[in-house]
Amino acid sequence: MPMKKFINDPENLTSELLDGYVKAYGQKVALQSEKLVVSANPKDASNVAIVTLGGAGHEPALSGFVGEGMLDISVVGDIFAAPGPPKVLEALKTANRDAGVLFVVLNHEGDVMSANTAQDMAESEGVKVKRILTHEDIAPGADAPAEDRRGLVGCVPLYKVAGAAAEAGKSLDEVYAVAEKFNNNMATLAVALKTATHPASGEAIFDLADDEMEIGMGQHGEAGTGSSKIMTANETAETMITQLSKAVDAKSGDKLLVMLNGAGATTLMELYIVFRRVKECLAAQGIEVARSLVGEYLTVQEMAGFQMFVAKMDDELLQLWDAPCDTPYLTVR
Amino acid sequence: MPMKKFINDPENLTSELLDGYVKAYGQKVALQSEKLVVSANPKDASNVAIVTLGGAGHEPALSGFVGEGMLDISVVGDIFAAPGPPKVLEALKTANRDAGVLFVVLNHEGDVMSANTAQDMAESEGVKVKRILTHEDIAPGADAPAEDRRGLVGCVPLYKVAGAAAEAGKSLDEVYAVAEKFNNNMATLAVALKTATHPASGEAIFDLADDEMEIGMGQHGEAGTGSSKIMTANETAETMITQLSKAVDAKSGDKLLVMLNGAGATTLMELYIVFRRVKECLAAQGIEVARSLVGEYLTVQEMAGFQMFVAKMDDELLQLWDAPCDTPYLTVR
Repeated sequence: MPMKKFINDPENLTSELLDGYVKAYGQKVALQSEKLVVSANPKDASNVAIVTLGGAGHEPALSGFVGEGMLDISVVGDIFAAPGPPKVLEALKTANRDAGVLFVVLNHEGDVMSANTAQDMAESEGVKVKRILTHEDIAPGADAPAEDRRGLVGCVPLYKVAGAAAEAGKSLDEVYAVAEKFNNNMATLAVALKTATHPASGEAIFDLADDEMEIGMGQHGEAGTGSSKIMTANETAETMITQLSKAVDAKSGDKLLVMLNGAGATTLMELYIVFRRVKECLAAQGIEVARSLVGEYLTVQEMAGFQMFVAKMDDELLQLWDAPCDTPYLTVR
Repeated sequence: MPMKKFINDPENLTSELLDGYVKAYGQKVALQSEKLVVSANPKDASNVAIVTLGGAGHEPALSGFVGEGMLDISVVGDIFAAPGPPKVLEALKTANRDAGVLFVVLNHEGDVMSANTAQDMAESEGVKVKRILTHEDIAPGADAPAEDRRGLVGCVPLYKVAGAAAEAGKSLDEVYAVAEKFNNNMATLAVALKTATHPASGEAIFDLADDEMEIGMGQHGEAGTGSSKIMTANETAETMITQLSKAVDAKSGDKLLVMLNGAGATTLMELYIVFRRVKECLAAQGIEVARSLVGEYLTVQEMAGFQMFVAKMDDELLQLWDAPCDTPYLTVR
């Protein structure tokens, strides 16, 4: 039986999707070489460059956020697979400049291994790099060691904050400091309702019974905190926001950025219904939702579910969040 | 068995989703009254207002495009159902101004009936209205009578063009003329791979065999041109763009706007692979893809499939397309 996906030869998925992506958004992005997505309008070399890496299959992430005010370069791996060190090294060398490079890595084993090797080689060749490791998944517990916590959708708003600081002409140390402040004040929790089909193998990524959901699942079907019977939207929202607001130690008077990131097949209709209850729960504690986004930013093919993201914001972070940007999948005027 | 959707009582779907939507995007949109979504930053009354109507369940359409440079008011019905005439009348009276109101209606029986009644009543009360009826579905044949052709995702780029003309201070006759020019030069064709669940009834919207796809399907599962065995992405792209470019009479040297609109569960990965082939096919005929968008603009719950949209563009239309806008789901700087 053929897969119910619009694809050609599964061997060519990543090269074809990237070719299509830069054909569709050629005014904003380009392929510098195979699997290296760069801004079509490079910023001045006196500004810090932002580089990231990660597997394909999560579109629009990560390459959908290359462009003015966010990423300079995204290094793309095959479906759900980290790119190899040579490609990452090429990216760091391409981005190299006196102002330096902020290198944003999501905490997944393959990504971290490629990043370590490539960064060592780049630094030995004189590239000035500082690294941010995102690991905001609270499924293993908000107090679990950083190395046990996965990087989820939080990379996307972090690109926004870091990218705005870079556009503003801040130094590498300053860009790093504000990005790390954001990194230390964010938390994500994922929930899954239905699995997805791996587009290369045709296999289901994970299994869930017809009457079950799972909170805490990673973005490739990695185990969460265990499955439960399906809850209503309100119950799901209450369970998740309670854990998230505790994880960032949100208190009355605090301002949060809240993002609901659809996993693929979950509708905006559902995400609005969840968001409604999240905002009510926070308001009851005197916590303000200062900014919010509801949409698909980092997906897992056609999985049903979403990631709920919160970050505690101060005036500096809000100003960077509100700064203009112009990428294929996030534009701020 | 509970539905695999994040909802509460299905009776409250529309009111809860709209409440959540305006809570999430309160800086851009507001609820003027139940089911009436208005811009949070109303434009000057000396500019033509743009009003539309349609059922919920297709998010982000239609209300996701309320805001600067696109829609002034969106009247929302229940899931897949037209709003009743009283609510539509309220919208037209709210929008009423000396400059007049452009009223954009998608060709679906319920929407047209509500629009007819409400527009008659509004005009008898002195509201100055001109109507655009979108009917760009070419599934019944590009030459079929307008009344047999459904309005699909084409309404969204039409809001953009008309909204930009209104922001530029053009008269109602001028806004109508350019919107109708766009309307007469656009075409859409839909393809479905997998059905979706109606979120109120819990029933599948339509049936398709495990190895079949259907081209020409309407956005509520209305019959298309018949099912076929699943084709590759390239074959699907070739079949659809051939019909669409013929429908708008595109010739060598012409410039097209091309949109691929995901139905819900179809990934951007797949849409990029399809877009790649569309652009290659058009290039082979000397037809330029002058502008393009790939994303989810008008969905059908978690249906797998997409709508392919093309419009023949001239300099006036390109200028309006490129003008700034700022809505929750389309922003142009």
